[in-house]
Amino acid sequence: MHPYRTHTCAALTAADVGSTVRLSGWVHRKRDHGGVLFIDLRDHYGMTQIVADEDSPALEVLDKLRVESVVTIDGEVKSRAESTINKNLPTGEIEVFARAITVQSRADELPLPVAGEQEYPEEIRLKYRFLDLRRETMHKNIVLRSQVISSLRRRMTDQGFLEYQTPILTASSPEGARDFLVPSRLHAGKFYALPQAPQMFKQMLMVSGFDRYFQIAPCFRDEDLRADRSLEFYQLDFEMSYVTQEDVFQALEPVLAGVFEEFSGGFTVTPAGEFPRIPYAEAMLKYGSDKPDLRNPLIISDVSSHFEQSGFGLFEKIVGSGGKVRVIPAPNTADKSRKFFDDMNNWARGEGFAGLGYVTRKGGEFGGPIAKNHGPERMEELYNELGLGPDDGLFFAAGKEKDAAKLAGAARTRVAEELGLIEQGCFKFCWIVDFPMFEYDEDLKKIDFSHNPFSMPQGEMEALETKDPLDILAWQYDIVCNGYELSSGAIRNHRPDIMYKAFEIAGYSQEEVDANFSGMINAFKFGAPPHGGSAPGIDRIVMLLAGEQAIREVIAFPMNQKGEDLMMQAPTVVSPKQLRELHIRTIEPPKATEAEKVRVDQIGD
Amino acid sequence: MHPYRTHTCAALTAADVGSTVRLSGWVHRKRDHGGVLFIDLRDHYGMTQIVADEDSPALEVLDKLRVESVVTIDGEVKSRAESTINKNLPTGEIEVFARAITVQSRADELPLPVAGEQEYPEEIRLKYRFLDLRRETMHKNIVLRSQVISSLRRRMTDQGFLEYQTPILTASSPEGARDFLVPSRLHAGKFYALPQAPQMFKQMLMVSGFDRYFQIAPCFRDEDLRADRSLEFYQLDFEMSYVTQEDVFQALEPVLAGVFEEFSGGFTVTPAGEFPRIPYAEAMLKYGSDKPDLRNPLIISDVSSHFEQSGFGLFEKIVGSGGKVRVIPAPNTADKSRKFFDDMNNWARGEGFAGLGYVTRKGGEFGGPIAKNHGPERMEELYNELGLGPDDGLFFAAGKEKDAAKLAGAARTRVAEELGLIEQGCFKFCWIVDFPMFEYDEDLKKIDFSHNPFSMPQGEMEALETKDPLDILAWQYDIVCNGYELSSGAIRNHRPDIMYKAFEIAGYSQEEVDANFSGMINAFKFGAPPHGGSAPGIDRIVMLLAGEQAIREVIAFPMNQKGEDLMMQAPTVVSPKQLRELHIRTIEPPKATEAEKVRVDQIGD
Repeated sequence: MHPYRTHTCAALTAADVGSTVRLSGWVHRKRDHGGVLFIDLRDHYGMTQIVADEDSPALEVLDKLRVESVVTIDGEVKSRAESTINKNLPTGEIEVFARAITVQSRADELPLPVAGEQEYPEEIRLKYRFLDLRRETMHKNIVLRSQVISSLRRRMTDQGFLEYQTPILTASSPEGARDFLVPSRLHAGKFYALPQAPQMFKQMLMVSGFDRYFQIAPCFRDEDLRADRSLEFYQLDFEMSYVTQEDVFQALEPVLAGVFEEFSGGFTVTPAGEFPRIPYAEAMLKYGSDKPDLRNPLIISDVSSHFEQSGFGLFEKIVGSGGKVRVIPAPNTADKSRKFFDDMNNWARGEGFAGLGYVTRKGGEFGGPIAKNHGPERMEELYNELGLGPDDGLFFAAGKEKDAAKLAGAARTRVAEELGLIEQGCFKFCWIVDFPMFEYDEDLKKIDFSHNPFSMPQGEMEALETKDPLDILAWQYDIVCNGYELSSGAIRNHRPDIMYKAFEIAGYSQEEVDANFSGMINAFKFGAPPHGGSAPGIDRIVMLLAGEQAIREVIAFPMNQKGEDLMMQAPTVVSPKQLRELHIRTIEPPKATEAEKVRVDQIGD
Repeated sequence: MHPYRTHTCAALTAADVGSTVRLSGWVHRKRDHGGVLFIDLRDHYGMTQIVADEDSPALEVLDKLRVESVVTIDGEVKSRAESTINKNLPTGEIEVFARAITVQSRADELPLPVAGEQEYPEEIRLKYRFLDLRRETMHKNIVLRSQVISSLRRRMTDQGFLEYQTPILTASSPEGARDFLVPSRLHAGKFYALPQAPQMFKQMLMVSGFDRYFQIAPCFRDEDLRADRSLEFYQLDFEMSYVTQEDVFQALEPVLAGVFEEFSGGFTVTPAGEFPRIPYAEAMLKYGSDKPDLRNPLIISDVSSHFEQSGFGLFEKIVGSGGKVRVIPAPNTADKSRKFFDDMNNWARGEGFAGLGYVTRKGGEFGGPIAKNHGPERMEELYNELGLGPDDGLFFAAGKEKDAAKLAGAARTRVAEELGLIEQGCFKFCWIVDFPMFEYDEDLKKIDFSHNPFSMPQGEMEALETKDPLDILAWQYDIVCNGYELSSGAIRNHRPDIMYKAFEIAGYSQEEVDANFSGMINAFKFGAPPHGGSAPGIDRIVMLLAGEQAIREVIAFPMNQKGEDLMMQAPTVVSPKQLRELHIRTIEPPKATEAEKVRVDQIGD
């Protein structure tokens, strides 16, 4: 017989009654029914009930053992009494009567209970992550993460993508975020950087003649931590050669739709091939955001033209000076009190906006100062144009276009949440497309890139040479799900001549481009294929599928918000010898120097 | 029609003759046959012959274009003339007559030719890796690597292993090798370390209740580079709970045998379930190595007892003072000259050994000083015992046991190579088992761990309490293929009490253990399952399968031997601002400060 187990704790059913078995696992729960002890024995796979009574030599041992100790139980499978059958458990029809017990590992008193999953402070959970991970939800989340990644890989491979590893010790990149640096021992004064993304390398792979690359790629950004951001994170990084934007969409849609269908637990998912493509300008207008949550049925409209001349002077003034008036419908709010509308205005002010105007309507009758000043006839006209009914309220966001759009977007979410309009049980995907290539930087009073300078402008060289830069769109796209941006992506600019031109428009000389992006520019001079890709965030995908609000809930060993690994105690002070070898010193030397460590030859494989 | 291609360059066959197609790819080769231009157009998938004559508008463009430029060709599929059919190419029966051409990317003159694969200095190859990777062998190697890793993953998953990611920014570990350090911005004076292996984390996963973990894990060691070692490398890291050593073997053998069978190109592979298990002591005796190449049929024997009393005084003296005499047969060497044997002796001296004695034999007649002094009768006796024949020579390695074993091992390889005895076309696996837990450190005059202090000693606590430490074996094992160690592995010591005891024997106090290994020891105090695993090196596996001698040939973007990425120019100096943010300064400030970089918002996905 195997020294530890003949079955896992999820394997035994009524069919095994009468067998002699051996199980190993953690003592999840103990229940003492007056001389009879019931143990829930837990392993990775499930739970089996163990019974020990006074005839069992295991009783005394189990009785003294703390929960979460690890034991091996030899016993006999028995049917449970009808009344104690647990239909929710695969092993719920049987129990194992313990004939013998071996204690593999005794547990001390626990700093964090495993059974029951009561809420516990995050610091304790992270310090004792090995206990936290035994809890049902966390255990499930981490298994889900593994399955999601495995499914993503399979779906990519099935489409002819090959996974290639790109370096983790690499060069500092000119991206916006802060790099993690790694001092070089062999090259005094020089540093490697951890990749913020394998962007350069995936483009190099295309230039190297590989056609469809992907990687579940670890990425690193030394930025402040948030619920949805950690210092290291993973993305489904991919790139394809000889493709248009449409080809990228056709490659990614089945992967995302497939994975979401597989793991959403019955939620509806936008089918592959049917992801809406929303131009950036339209998204900013209709949703007030470039990551619209399409579960929200409310659509923002621009009503500026209605207020060019209006009794409501404020809007007239705003529109007159080039601003915009945007509206968010609040359907079926006839029964809402004045307070509902005022609270919304207060919320907007609390968020730092000038305020959210509103019109109420009950049985066709308008209310509120805007309606009063604008006049019921012209309000009626506006309502007809918007297709609104006699009991629909309306919120107003006005100001400079950017501000109005932003407020309208936030209000759209808030209104829908307050009115319970967000559709539940679904994952709604869309692409945001047609991002502007350039924008006017108000601070620097110059034209600059609006997003990614290395995207191919739509219309390529001709557009750069003939169009108003602010009218040029880029082959750039974001993939959005339920209001979360999963990734941006682009068809890349693979032509040095077009790249120099684009940078020239943004005010950079050829010399500056060569100095800063020599790696990529050089490579493109020896035959580069047209190529493009994207890189959906894995942690965020798993977070959505797990229904969690923080990515720490879907990462096995995350850091806390201060960037500390409380379990492994990282970061730490290191020995002066280590620093000397790396040719660096710390500016503020750590207070205490750690004792020399016991160095052993090898502890791992 | 798709703007870039209707087919890949490997897709067209005789069945497509007559179709109008569009292909994109690199101009691999150009051949001018007097007014008719033949182009090999290459992409990731293959090669297609393009033809342009004076009727083709593509002729002039192609004529002026350098090889490795990227073009899109519109044309018509035609049968090749019978005499020009290339049976080695899937597309060898057809060619595409070019009707139109679009130049996607012009190539400058190449620093490194792609077609033909002539040898080139490594510095050039690495600087222009994007060209080097277009070459046939490198391209194949990297695709092979991807396929091997994908197959490893599938085989692990099929056995119920789940892949979990462990942190890359983590704590400095007490392993023997040097850590890469990452200064923390948020915690002045403190550092993260990159993992030398996810050893701690995989054990934590077991303690967290996950059962079968694996990961294609990036690992980092700041050690000097060699042909088979790089700063970052990947291992198939795995760990299992509630297992014996035998369970680990049964899990890994089908994975390794399966992958090697799948990708060895017809080599025979030791079948899963039949990997020999060779105790460490036996390996050191019979092969003079703990990573024996079993393709080598020669077996070393200990003949010390024959020389306790011998006319050959040197051996008598060595054996008398506790040394050993080991022999390596040299079968069928009757026709070898004296020089062959003398050269072998010279080689051994050149390697720093005292020398390699020998006996020659032709038609039953012994030759050489050892035979002369030892006497033909006693030589005959020795030969009979060893099962050697009338034309077999014999080499002698004598000295202290360790030295004799080492020399015998090296000589065994050398003799087999010289005699052409190494079996070709096969991958021979074995496990080395029963490593000693402790060894006597001659320098420190104390008992210390011989390999991994965290392995479970065979016999557990009882062995530690009752046996001579030097007789205690560990549940520790290496997996070896064709003389390459792919990995060590072990059943871990999951019991703090046994761990304290083992460290006590090696001279460490409980306080020292707690201070240095608190993370692991603490975790084991809250219920740890018995567990074990291993971590075969991926780069080495791919190197073996690709038939390469250096792992740089199976890594897409490797560093050079000096730890530099010549393509991306890493490591580099960084800005004073970056160093300030990280609270460090360099000891020898870099000579030149780099110009401030153009910072752009985002260049990647």
